[in-house]
Amino acid sequence: MTTSQIRALFAVASRPEVVSLAGGMPNLSVLPLDAVAATVQHLVKEHSAVALQYGSGQGDPQLRERICEVMALEGIAAPAQDVVITVGSQQALDLVTRIFCDPGDVVLCEAPSYVGALGVFASYECEVVQVPMDEGGLVPAALAEALGRLAAAGRRAKFLYTIPNHHNPAGVSIPQSRRAELLDICTAADLLIVEDNPYGLLSFDAEPPPAIRAMDPKVIYLGSFSKTFAPGFRVGWALAPPDVRDALVLVQEAATLCPPTFGQHAISAYLAGQDWRAQIDALRDLYLERRDAMLDALRQELSGIATWTVPDGGFYIWLRLLAGVDTTAMLPRAIEQRVAYVPGAAFFAGGGGADCLRLSYCYPTPERIQEGVRRLARVIEAELDLAPAVRTPVALVRS
Amino acid sequence: MTTSQIRALFAVASRPEVVSLAGGMPNLSVLPLDAVAATVQHLVKEHSAVALQYGSGQGDPQLRERICEVMALEGIAAPAQDVVITVGSQQALDLVTRIFCDPGDVVLCEAPSYVGALGVFASYECEVVQVPMDEGGLVPAALAEALGRLAAAGRRAKFLYTIPNHHNPAGVSIPQSRRAELLDICTAADLLIVEDNPYGLLSFDAEPPPAIRAMDPKVIYLGSFSKTFAPGFRVGWALAPPDVRDALVLVQEAATLCPPTFGQHAISAYLAGQDWRAQIDALRDLYLERRDAMLDALRQELSGIATWTVPDGGFYIWLRLLAGVDTTAMLPRAIEQRVAYVPGAAFFAGGGGADCLRLSYCYPTPERIQEGVRRLARVIEAELDLAPAVRTPVALVRS
Repeated sequence: MTTSQIRALFAVASRPEVVSLAGGMPNLSVLPLDAVAATVQHLVKEHSAVALQYGSGQGDPQLRERICEVMALEGIAAPAQDVVITVGSQQALDLVTRIFCDPGDVVLCEAPSYVGALGVFASYECEVVQVPMDEGGLVPAALAEALGRLAAAGRRAKFLYTIPNHHNPAGVSIPQSRRAELLDICTAADLLIVEDNPYGLLSFDAEPPPAIRAMDPKVIYLGSFSKTFAPGFRVGWALAPPDVRDALVLVQEAATLCPPTFGQHAISAYLAGQDWRAQIDALRDLYLERRDAMLDALRQELSGIATWTVPDGGFYIWLRLLAGVDTTAMLPRAIEQRVAYVPGAAFFAGGGGADCLRLSYCYPTPERIQEGVRRLARVIEAELDLAPAVRTPVALVRS
Repeated sequence: MTTSQIRALFAVASRPEVVSLAGGMPNLSVLPLDAVAATVQHLVKEHSAVALQYGSGQGDPQLRERICEVMALEGIAAPAQDVVITVGSQQALDLVTRIFCDPGDVVLCEAPSYVGALGVFASYECEVVQVPMDEGGLVPAALAEALGRLAAAGRRAKFLYTIPNHHNPAGVSIPQSRRAELLDICTAADLLIVEDNPYGLLSFDAEPPPAIRAMDPKVIYLGSFSKTFAPGFRVGWALAPPDVRDALVLVQEAATLCPPTFGQHAISAYLAGQDWRAQIDALRDLYLERRDAMLDALRQELSGIATWTVPDGGFYIWLRLLAGVDTTAMLPRAIEQRVAYVPGAAFFAGGGGADCLRLSYCYPTPERIQEGVRRLARVIEAELDLAPAVRTPVALVRS
């Protein structure tokens, strides 16, 4: 399932009669729209000479200063000169991969992993090696094993791509002690870490966990305003050591001349003029309520026929169906029953996840979430009745 | 000279005491800022659910319809479904190159060519073959010869990149009859044309010439709002045949998920609500006045020591100095004399252009343009006094 197929799914899922538990669209309902509207109006009226003009390839210096304040919340101490602004953090990953990878190069990531990352790796013809996770995220022993297998084959990975907080799609986070263990393994193997952290500030616990980058300045850290403010300005960033930063600036200039100027200034003004920390608290409360609504509905509707992760932040819950249902094959029937999800196979580069699916609780209301899970439960139940029949004619008699 | 070095030059050139004839920054002074300010404010207040959210990888359908109206002014009849929105037309060229080129592949372009295009080709490790121009742009016989040389070496180019209107940096346009001739040569050689046209609507003649794409739907056409509206929203586009379009959408999704949503909606609303054709007329008048100011100053100050092109649109004049001055070596002395330009060498991938330079008349006022050319003339004169001394001690006596 490609990014494009996912987009096609989202198009169907956006029909009003469908409860979409598929998309990862942030909820913009708690944004201070009047203030943002006044900000953008002011930018055009008073600062058009910079806000509507070309900017620097590295991005606006003031915004880069603000980004350092944001990253400080997760324990990162870094200078603004090491930040490169990108067209969402998606482009940060795209440019990092462009710098490091030739066709056939190996990239390590979690199993499952973010579909947009798999899209980047496919686009550069990387070989993706996915490493198992458990409820504590990426499993250190599994990472060591994967590195060992590569070394035995005379190969080495270009980097490890990881989403340590509120993983997309797995909905789990890596505890602090495990981060240290993973970092040790990577350091010993001289393996670069690319840490993607769009959801870290959306932790339901009071304090977001320190970033891996906070423990090691060699880590490349990717951040985004898409989940904590709004994706429409397309502003993300990479924090990288100076040599990588220089390469990123050069490749950003080739790719776009400069990242979107107006969006950078809008976000910079928003961060300067609004209580953005309180705003993130409001988003957290909103997502927490919706997560709870989804967990309640799952317990009521799917106990005994599925297991799921319990996220402590972010947007996603990862389900595994007990009886080996193929969630890709089931999707058209779910859409027919007016509920959408993303099939697990989308999050695996080389097969896997067929009996899994991702649910998002970020966008619909709690009531719609409950209705969506109810519909999904009926679809899965129908599938379970059907499944043995499809597989073994004998079972047909039984049903 | 890399894009990055050009940027460093622009940073120096932006000091207020320096007259910068270097940058290609459009002049935003005639934009209807109150209307644009009201537009962006309204977008946030009334349409945040789409304008601040993720959009489609291909770009907003309404904006793509509007873009077809813009392209119709240059004789292009194309459906909105074949348009892909990009982060400026720079990204359009980046994505096209990403699709077509592997390291070592040959790309043909004009000599000189746009420095940002050379940056893209270098980034993908293309081999760039530059084809001579004259006052009518790309020379057909030279193109045929270059193709012949490639064929004789058993190689073929992936595409021809051309800027047919108001060329950057050469300041010339390809006449209609020559376009047909070039198209015939490319068709016979089965060579893809990538037509980059950011300046076509900024023709000082009443009617912009028809695009090459208007003559052949196989041509990939790149467009931009950076020169006819404002670059700060970073919105450009590619018009491509369906198979290339599909590939562009996929690679755009990998590169950014979607192009900047807010900027797309801002431009779409601007095109819908404002008399943008009258606005382009106002820009044209502004640039024409500045071109004339520069041509007057050049005639007064540089007759006999330089030749230059006479653009009938766009931003640029290309100068060749008569006595073999090295314009890259001269630049620090020009900056010292408080005038900046871009050395000719920046527009050649493999050497060339050392005695040439690009002047831009788009941004400074007519008075500043005249002052800048005066300063430049003094710098060149000093250089000419010096040049024989550097080369042949005998000449020192003569001077």
